[in-house]
Amino acid sequence: MTDKQVYELEAVPNRYPDRNYVVDISIPEFTCVCPRTGLPDFATINISYSPDQTIVELKSLKYYILNYRDMGIFHEAVTNQIMDDLKKLLNPRWIEVEGDFRPRGGIKTVVTAQWPEQELDQ
Amino acid sequence: MTDKQVYELEAVPNRYPDRNYVVDISIPEFTCVCPRTGLPDFATINISYSPDQTIVELKSLKYYILNYRDMGIFHEAVTNQIMDDLKKLLNPRWIEVEGDFRPRGGIKTVVTAQWPEQELDQ
Amino acid sequence: MTDKQVYELEAVPNRYPDRNYVVDISIPEFTCVCPRTGLPDFATINISYSPDQTIVELKSLKYYILNYRDMGIFHEAVTNQIMDDLKKLLNPRWIEVEGDFRPRGGIKTVVTAQWPEQELDQ
Amino acid sequence: MTDKQVYELEAVPNRYPDRNYVVDISIPEFTCVCPRTGLPDFATINISYSPDQTIVELKSLKYYILNYRDMGIFHEAVTNQIMDDLKKLLNPRWIEVEGDFRPRGGIKTVVTAQWPEQELDQ
Amino acid sequence: MTDKQVYELEAVPNRYPDRNYVVDISIPEFTCVCPRTGLPDFATINISYSPDQTIVELKSLKYYILNYRDMGIFHEAVTNQIMDDLKKLLNPRWIEVEGDFRPRGGIKTVVTAQWPEQELDQ
Amino acid sequence: MTDKQVYELEAVPNRYPDRNYVVDISIPEFTCVCPRTGLPDFATINISYSPDQTIVELKSLKYYILNYRDMGIFHEAVTNQIMDDLKKLLNPRWIEVEGDFRPRGGIKTVVTAQWPEQELDQ
Amino acid sequence: MTDKQVYELEAVPNRYPDRNYVVDISIPEFTCVCPRTGLPDFATINISYSPDQTIVELKSLKYYILNYRDMGIFHEAVTNQIMDDLKKLLNPRWIEVEGDFRPRGGIKTVVTAQWPEQELDQ
Amino acid sequence: MTDKQVYELEAVPNRYPDRNYVVDISIPEFTCVCPRTGLPDFATINISYSPDQTIVELKSLKYYILNYRDMGIFHEAVTNQIMDDLKKLLNPRWIEVEGDFRPRGGIKTVVTAQWPEQELDQ
Amino acid sequence: MTDKQVYELEAVPNRYPDRNYVVDISIPEFTCVCPRTGLPDFATINISYSPDQTIVELKSLKYYILNYRDMGIFHEAVTNQIMDDLKKLLNPRWIEVEGDFRPRGGIKTVVTAQWPEQELDQ
Amino acid sequence: MTDKQVYELEAVPNRYPDRNYVVDISIPEFTCVCPRTGLPDFATINISYSPDQTIVELKSLKYYILNYRDMGIFHEAVTNQIMDDLKKLLNPRWIEVEGDFRPRGGIKTVVTAQWPEQELDQ
Repeated sequence: MTDKQVYELEAVPNRYPDRNYVVDISIPEFTCVCPRTGLPDFATINISYSPDQTIVELKSLKYYILNYRDMGIFHEAVTNQIMDDLKKLLNPRWIEVEGDFRPRGGIKTVVTAQWPEQELDQ
Repeated sequence: MTDKQVYELEAVPNRYPDRNYVVDISIPEFTCVCPRTGLPDFATINISYSPDQTIVELKSLKYYILNYRDMGIFHEAVTNQIMDDLKKLLNPRWIEVEGDFRPRGGIKTVVTAQWPEQELDQ
Repeated sequence: MTDKQVYELEAVPNRYPDRNYVVDISIPEFTCVCPRTGLPDFATINISYSPDQTIVELKSLKYYILNYRDMGIFHEAVTNQIMDDLKKLLNPRWIEVEGDFRPRGGIKTVVTAQWPEQELDQ
Repeated sequence: MTDKQVYELEAVPNRYPDRNYVVDISIPEFTCVCPRTGLPDFATINISYSPDQTIVELKSLKYYILNYRDMGIFHEAVTNQIMDDLKKLLNPRWIEVEGDFRPRGGIKTVVTAQWPEQELDQ
Repeated sequence: MTDKQVYELEAVPNRYPDRNYVVDISIPEFTCVCPRTGLPDFATINISYSPDQTIVELKSLKYYILNYRDMGIFHEAVTNQIMDDLKKLLNPRWIEVEGDFRPRGGIKTVVTAQWPEQELDQ
Repeated sequence: MTDKQVYELEAVPNRYPDRNYVVDISIPEFTCVCPRTGLPDFATINISYSPDQTIVELKSLKYYILNYRDMGIFHEAVTNQIMDDLKKLLNPRWIEVEGDFRPRGGIKTVVTAQWPEQELDQ
Repeated sequence: MTDKQVYELEAVPNRYPDRNYVVDISIPEFTCVCPRTGLPDFATINISYSPDQTIVELKSLKYYILNYRDMGIFHEAVTNQIMDDLKKLLNPRWIEVEGDFRPRGGIKTVVTAQWPEQELDQ
Repeated sequence: MTDKQVYELEAVPNRYPDRNYVVDISIPEFTCVCPRTGLPDFATINISYSPDQTIVELKSLKYYILNYRDMGIFHEAVTNQIMDDLKKLLNPRWIEVEGDFRPRGGIKTVVTAQWPEQELDQ
Repeated sequence: MTDKQVYELEAVPNRYPDRNYVVDISIPEFTCVCPRTGLPDFATINISYSPDQTIVELKSLKYYILNYRDMGIFHEAVTNQIMDDLKKLLNPRWIEVEGDFRPRGGIKTVVTAQWPEQELDQ
Repeated sequence: MTDKQVYELEAVPNRYPDRNYVVDISIPEFTCVCPRTGLPDFATINISYSPDQTIVELKSLKYYILNYRDMGIFHEAVTNQIMDDLKKLLNPRWIEVEGDFRPRGGIKTVVTAQWPEQELDQ
C-alpha cells in the first residue's frame, strides 16, 4: 500500500436494465486521514442507487475504498467525491451516499449527498 | 438434494379477493452460491405483496427456496428472479422482494425490487 | 373451555364521539390451531382504530380472543375475520388489524388488513 | 395527598411566539385508578405541541399530573382530558397527547388524541 | 473558564456550493445552568443543515458550545438561540436544531426548531 | 383506596417442599411517597426466593403492594420492609429483594437486601 | 386436540455417552390454563441438561408440550412436573427447567427447578 | 457557581445497621475539566456500597458532585477521590466507585476503585 | 460442491506457545442437512480454545465448514464432531464448541461440548 | 505517516500506587494489514490493567496504535504484542488485552491474552 497504487472502480452490466430497483451497499470499514491533524478518521460509508445499464462490481469497490486510506480529505469532500465517482461510472437513475463519521472532540458528523438533488423542502 | 430436484411454487385461493390487504413473509434461512468463487452466500429474503385471486402456499415456498441452495447466482439476479417467479404465479396487486445479504469483504449489500416500479423520485 | 363456549364482543359508548382519535391495542398472547396439521399457531394481534360512537370493551375482547384457541383457521383468515368482527361491532372511522405469526419451517408471516382499504400505490 | 388538593396548570410566556417550533414532553411516571376495579393503572404520557403565546410551566405540569393519582378514569378519557386541559391553557398551534398504558389481562392499549384532528385517511 | 471567555463560531467555504446536501452534527456533551435553580442541565444538541456558501468549522463549534456551560438559560431559549446563531453565520438552505434534555422531576423535554418553519399541518 | 385499607399477604402450600427451587417475581408498577417532599416515587420491585413449606399467593402480593401507594417511606426502608414481611410470612430457605427506583435529581438508586446476608467479600 | 390425547416423551440414544456436554432447549410457545380463573397462561420453557445414555427426541417434546394446552396447573407445578418427566425419561447427569411466564396483574414470575438441587448458598 | 462554593457530603442514620445490604447509585450527569486542555470531560459515576451506621444523603451527594464542575482533575484521580470522600463519610462495610468517561481521541476509559481492595487474582 | 470435495483443516504454528491465551471464533453461516427430513438446518458455530503449539488456519476452517453443507447429521453429533476434529488437529490446552441452531417446530436447541469436560456441578 | 514514524508509549506516575484499582481502555478505531492478502483488518482493542507505579499516558497510546496502521501482522500476534509492550512499560499488577476483529469470509475472531496467565481450568 506504500506505493500508493490507485484502484479503479469497475462496472458490470445490469441484467435488469428495464426495472427501477435499488441496491444498498454498506462499508463499515472506511478510513482516511484528517488533512489538518494528519490523524486517521473512521467512518461507515452507505451507498444507495438505482442502476441503469450497469451495476458497480463489489470487489473493485472494496479496492477503490483503499485509495482513501492514506489520503488527507475532509468529511464533506470524501462523501461528495465518492458520489461523483460512482455517478460518473454508473450513470444511475439516482444515487445517495452517506458518510457517517466517528466522533471527534465529542462531536459526531454525518454528511449525506444525493443526485438528483433533494427538493429544498425536506 | 444432490439429484437437484426442482421444486415448484404453488398458489392457493385467496379467500378475501375483494380486499386490498398485505402479506409479509420473511425467510432468514436463504443460501445460494457465488458464481465467481463457488462459495456459499447467505441472506434473508423479505417478501411483501397484496394478493389478488391467490396467495402463495407457504410449504411450497419453503421448498422453492431450496432450489437456490446449489445454484450459482448474483445478489441482484436472485432478488429479481424470486420477484418474477412470485409475480408470475400470483399476479398480485403489488409485490416487493428484498434480498438482505451477509457481508463479504467488509461490504454488505441489500437489493430491493418491486412491481409496479417505484416512481423515480424516491 | 372444552365446552367450546362462544364469547361475544361488547361495545361501550365513546365519550369523545366528535373527535378523530386513535386506539391501539396489542394482544401478544394469541393462539389458534393450524387447519392442516392440527398443531397450535401463535401470534401477536395488533389492532388500531379510530372510534365513532362506541369503543370496544377490553375485557370482552380478551374473552373473544379465547374463541380462537381451539379453532382451525389460516393466518390470512383469522386476521381478516377479527377485522370484520370489530368493524361490524364498532362501525369505526377506520380500522387496521395485523396478525404477526411466529415462524414455521424457517418462514415468518405477517398479515395486515385495513378498512377503508389502502390505495394501490403503497 | 389525601386531602385531594387540586393542582393547576400554569403557562409562561413563549419567548419565540413568531416561530413554529415544537416541544415534546414525556412523563413516564403517570398513575391513575381503574374506575371498574379500583386498582391502579400505570402509563407514560407523551405530549407534543407547537407553542403560540405561551408554553406550559413544567413544575406545574408535574403537580397537575398528581391530580390523577387517586382519580378513577378510563384510558380514553384521561388522554383526551389532558389534551383538552393543555389546549385550553396554551391555545397552541397544534397539540398531540399519547397515553401509553401498561398491559392488563395480556392486552396493552395506547390512546392518541390530537388537535387539529388528523385527516380521515391516515 | 472562570474568566467567561466568549468563543466565536467560524465558517469555512463550502467546496460543493452548487449541491443541495446535508450535514448532521450531534453534540452529546452539552451542559448549561437552569436559571431558576442554578443547577446544571444536560442535553444532546442535534444540528442538521444544508450548506450554501459556507459550512461550520467543527472546532469553533466545540468551543462555541462552551459558552453555555455557565449560562443560565431555559430549554426553549437555548435551542432557538443556537439555531439563530448558526443561521446568521451560515445562511444555510435550511437548518434544524434539536435540544434533547435529560429528565427533571420525572419529566423529559425535547425542543425542536427549524428554518424555514415547518408547515402547520405536521 | 382513600380509606387506607390494609392488605395482608397470604401464603399457600408449596407442593414441592423437599426441593430447593427458585421463584423470581418482578413488580414494575410500584409507587410510594417520598417522606420529605410528599411527591410520589416509582420503582420496580424484584423478589427472588427459594420456598420451604409455603409460597406467596400472587394476588395477595399484588394487593399488599397497594399498601405503599400512599405511604411516606424511604428507598432503603421500603426494600428492607418488603423483605422482612415476606421472610416472616414464608420462612423461605433464602430470599432477596431489590428496589430499583426511577431517577430523582439526575441520580438513580437501587437497594438490594437478602437473607441470609451475603458474605462480606462480594 | 379435543379428545385430550396424551403425548409421550421419547428418548433416543446419546451418541456421546462418555462426554459431559450440554443441551439447551427453548420453547417460547408454551400455554396452559390457570386453575383458578380458567384463563390461559403463556410462558417460555427453557430446558438445559447434560445427557447420559439418552437424549430427548425433539418432535416428541413438541407434542408432549401440547398436553398442557388444556390443563389447569400452577406456575410452580408445571415447571417442576416438566423437570420430573424429563429426569425420569432421560436420567441425565443434571437438568434445569425454567418457566418464564408472561405478566398477570402487573406481576411477572419465573420459576426455576434443577437437579441435583443447587446448594443453599446461591 | 462562579464563587466556587464547596458542597459538603452529609450522612444520615442507617435504619438497618445490622443487615449487610447494598445501595447502588448512578450519576450520569458528571462533568469536570481536563487539567491539560482546560476542556470539559463528561462521565457517569457509579457507586455501590454496603452501609454500616450511616447512608449518604442523596441531595447532598447531588450538590457534592457540583464541586467537580470547574475542577481540573484526571480520570484516575476523580474516581479515587470520590471513593475516599464517601469512605471517610460513611465508613461502609465495602464500597466501589466507577468513573465511566466519554471517549477522547477515539479512546474511552473506565476507572474502577474499591475498598477493601480486590484480590490480585481477578 | 456437487462433487463432494472434502476440505481439510490446517494448523499453523502458534507464535506464543508459552502463553495461556484464548481464541474465540464465531461462524454464523453454518448449514447442514437434517438426516430425518432431508431439509437444511442452520446454526451459528462458536469455537473457543487456548492454543498450544498450533492455531487453526482460518481459511481452512472456512472451507472445512463447507463439508457439512450437504451432510445429513444431528445437532448433537455435528457439535461434538467439530470439537473432536479441532481437538485432534490442535491438541489445545482446552476447547469448547457451541452449536446454536435456528428454531424448528417452535423449539430452539443449543448444544455445547468442551474438553476437558466440565465438572458435574455446573 | 508514509515515513513510517514510530511512536513510543509513555508512562506517567500513578497517584494511587498503594491501591489495587482498575483502568479499562477501549480503542474502537484500530486497523492493521493482513500479512497474507495485504488488505486492511479492523478491530476494537480493549485493555484492562491494575496500575502499579505508573499508568499509560492516553495520548501516547493513541499514537502508538498508529504504528500498526501499515504493519502486516496476524490477529493473534497483534493482541499479544500490545500486551507485551504495555506490560514492559507499566509493570502492572495484572493486565488483559482483547483484540475483537471484524469478520472475514463469514468468520469472526476475538483474541484475548492476559498476565499473569489464567489458570487452566477456565
